[in-house]
Amino acid sequence: MTQATVNRVCILALGLIGGSLAKAIRENGFAGEVVGWGRREVSLKRGVELGVIDRYSLDLKEAVSGSDIVVIATPTLIAETMLQQLAELMQQGVMGAQTVITDVASVKGNLLAAAQRFFGEVPPNLVLGHPIAGSEKSGVEAANAELFINHRVIVTPCDSTDSQALALVKSMWESTGAELAEMPVDEHDEVLAATSHLPHVLAYALVDALAGLEERQNIFRYAAGGFRDFTRIASSDPTMWHEISLANSDAILKMIDVFSDQLQQLRTAIAAADSEAIVGCFTRAKTARDNFSQLLAKQNQSTISDE
Amino acid sequence: MTQATVNRVCILALGLIGGSLAKAIRENGFAGEVVGWGRREVSLKRGVELGVIDRYSLDLKEAVSGSDIVVIATPTLIAETMLQQLAELMQQGVMGAQTVITDVASVKGNLLAAAQRFFGEVPPNLVLGHPIAGSEKSGVEAANAELFINHRVIVTPCDSTDSQALALVKSMWESTGAELAEMPVDEHDEVLAATSHLPHVLAYALVDALAGLEERQNIFRYAAGGFRDFTRIASSDPTMWHEISLANSDAILKMIDVFSDQLQQLRTAIAAADSEAIVGCFTRAKTARDNFSQLLAKQNQSTISDE
Repeated sequence: MTQATVNRVCILALGLIGGSLAKAIRENGFAGEVVGWGRREVSLKRGVELGVIDRYSLDLKEAVSGSDIVVIATPTLIAETMLQQLAELMQQGVMGAQTVITDVASVKGNLLAAAQRFFGEVPPNLVLGHPIAGSEKSGVEAANAELFINHRVIVTPCDSTDSQALALVKSMWESTGAELAEMPVDEHDEVLAATSHLPHVLAYALVDALAGLEERQNIFRYAAGGFRDFTRIASSDPTMWHEISLANSDAILKMIDVFSDQLQQLRTAIAAADSEAIVGCFTRAKTARDNFSQLLAKQNQSTISDE
Repeated sequence: MTQATVNRVCILALGLIGGSLAKAIRENGFAGEVVGWGRREVSLKRGVELGVIDRYSLDLKEAVSGSDIVVIATPTLIAETMLQQLAELMQQGVMGAQTVITDVASVKGNLLAAAQRFFGEVPPNLVLGHPIAGSEKSGVEAANAELFINHRVIVTPCDSTDSQALALVKSMWESTGAELAEMPVDEHDEVLAATSHLPHVLAYALVDALAGLEERQNIFRYAAGGFRDFTRIASSDPTMWHEISLANSDAILKMIDVFSDQLQQLRTAIAAADSEAIVGCFTRAKTARDNFSQLLAKQNQSTISDE
């Protein structure tokens, strides 16, 4: 049997992402042991039954103690609190400074700020990361060891990040079949605001606006395939997206403004029957979208999905 | 052999919709003969080869003469010109007042206005209609006799519409397997602005805005499944959507404003970290979108697609 890369990984919260990472690590042998922590014992018990984790503890101190890597896999805003608690455990000497801390949240800037606040500086052993993977399913029952295969994981190291800690987090994700990318925190949050957070905000705003119209019954009755695809992400979890909206508000507000300017320009062109401007916008968009399709086809990411 | 309902149907332009309707009618025997008219002889010849039409003419007068139903299946703005030419042929006595005229365009108000302009009034034999069906493919090669099965066709009769003409157009569409609905012209254009035209405008505006950003390379590289679905309609034909934007500009501008108001409210809520307002909007939208999913499932329109 191949030697495991690390002795123990601890996953904080067994949602879809945390559970899938735990299961992938157990199956690929990256760690000798995967320990789960969470608040709901029923989920943790189920995690053991399903082979997602080896064992669990409801006590954070006990769970993280002796772990080589601690993965914060809670919702976005709770992840800030987890950093605070881990900072305290590190001060108490429960966790050594060599224990690598990482996370899976959709926004990185708020966690970087939280780390500065709670650790006094961004600790060298903290490597923030974000797997671009998801599913309409949630919870430990949906844990899927193959969720990350061919999916991007973006890690966002800082100047202070320890290179060995970074390498360890990258090799953990590589063991799951993911493709690694590196990006500064600011850039990550802007790119995600543009490609994921803004589209969710637009889809929610559109469906809420239409649902408020008098003709809403006919609107939804006669909506067809384009509308179905365009609004699918408005079925996403409101609590999770509320947290993302707050955690990445600066970049999201900026992107809303960029989009609104473009929409108002298009509105002006339609009102003035300015064919050149309308066709220009539509054609540039089609070209960019067609190029994106080709990029996707090249990456052969047929199973690609979103968080 | 069952007696055909009418002797002859003439289809003006063999695009995807005109070609598919022609093919469906030939296969189901609604008409004794299907005649095609268009500007590009190569498409018409191909239509005969593919069994889409029985015969064709490049001369409009010859094509429509003796037809029981004339279907305008040209792009949106050219359809106005076709009404003008048909009005002239009717004045010349080439077409009798009993010849039923109908169309397949995505916007109805501009054609109603064109009819008033060219016929002096909305003629009783004019029955405007809109099949909510489409495909990413186009042209006569893509003609598909099953395109309309279980898809909605909205007819928009006026007070002046002859009831027999209306019944004939409805029975033509019923013969293709479509589900018929009736709606006033204004309502049709508002419903379609909300469910189809506005989403296209938003998708075009979003992709054009992102393609104009400095980070565009990373944006498209790290975009995932939600973005792919959300922006799919930005790959639609710019010329066709330019025409729809102009033909239905009043309703589209109104819907852009309704949407922009909602987006600005959401922007304000995110900027103020107003969790109640954010969660309220997201939750209302999710509920409406989930209900829409159930509606779609009930209609069992698994093959539903958009124009």
